[in-house]
Amino acid sequence: MAPPIYCALVHYPVRDREGQAVTTAVTNLDIHDIARTARTYGLKGYYIVTPIEAQRVLVLKVLEHWDVGPGRKRVPERSEALSLCNVVTGVEDAMSDIQAREGTAPVVVATGARSVSHRRLSSYTKEAQRLREDTTPTLLLFGTGHGLYEALVERADILLAPIRAQGDFNHLSVRAAAAIVLDRLLGDEN
Amino acid sequence: MAPPIYCALVHYPVRDREGQAVTTAVTNLDIHDIARTARTYGLKGYYIVTPIEAQRVLVLKVLEHWDVGPGRKRVPERSEALSLCNVVTGVEDAMSDIQAREGTAPVVVATGARSVSHRRLSSYTKEAQRLREDTTPTLLLFGTGHGLYEALVERADILLAPIRAQGDFNHLSVRAAAAIVLDRLLGDEN
Repeated sequence: MAPPIYCALVHYPVRDREGQAVTTAVTNLDIHDIARTARTYGLKGYYIVTPIEAQRVLVLKVLEHWDVGPGRKRVPERSEALSLCNVVTGVEDAMSDIQAREGTAPVVVATGARSVSHRRLSSYTKEAQRLREDTTPTLLLFGTGHGLYEALVERADILLAPIRAQGDFNHLSVRAAAAIVLDRLLGDEN
Repeated sequence: MAPPIYCALVHYPVRDREGQAVTTAVTNLDIHDIARTARTYGLKGYYIVTPIEAQRVLVLKVLEHWDVGPGRKRVPERSEALSLCNVVTGVEDAMSDIQAREGTAPVVVATGARSVSHRRLSSYTKEAQRLREDTTPTLLLFGTGHGLYEALVERADILLAPIRAQGDFNHLSVRAAAAIVLDRLLGDEN
């Protein structure tokens, strides 16, 4: 039995170039790409987090196009991926939704490209093992902009180490980072 | 010493939904995302392959914006990633360019989501080891649309196994697939 794993793409609170908390704009491609990756790796849900109502309405329109609109007929596998998506106002709403669905609050796992300290910093190997053994629901947080805001990372139960801690360049798109993280945690043996 | 590794995003010849050879349109985000991933994993170059001249002109305009245009000042690390990009007409041109730069023709490695037979089908573990030991240049091919056209896969020296051979859903975006492949082949121990 695969444990219930969810992910969230956070548009607030995230860092700008200077580390200040900002709200970023939702992009259509982040919805699609991360939904396809989430579906490929067997996630149970994908939350798009934004406090801006107009943006939530926009996301719902995109999802409707692929749910009951013309998208489903043209590319059915895209509809299947996008059916994982939910739109919420804040990370707390994603957490309550998971608690309502699963009966238990999720373990919240933050990700990020910067090396920061955390009381429970984990490696991919260690976290992959926890996901194989632990049946508690898990919520993986991905940050847009320049990454998750500090206070949100601090509140997370676990922080995953950066993907390229040793490299001299670490500016992956969030779409690429989410794909790599899910593959490291849930990928086949190869 | 890291071996010289290059990648190419192929817009022709690729498969349509029915397996016929088609030419797909270049998208701005494929240029950016894969350039950022390629730079993160230390690749020496990233070829955007399209036989359509108008599309090559378009890509050159995007690259110019980030090379000598206003992009460099605003997001310098983006310029650094995009400086890896080259635009070529066909996969053969990418191969000749690598031969001219490196003095040796590259080993061509095809990727794809479908399980097909190939005289030299390789696993990620095996290919990662080859890249650590072999100093021959390597060119990794990624297909847009529904994947690289059959004849191109056949001509490749090596075919990498699909990323999710066991899953029931395998419709990753090429941006996500490229990120996962490079991480599996060249990622840190974690």
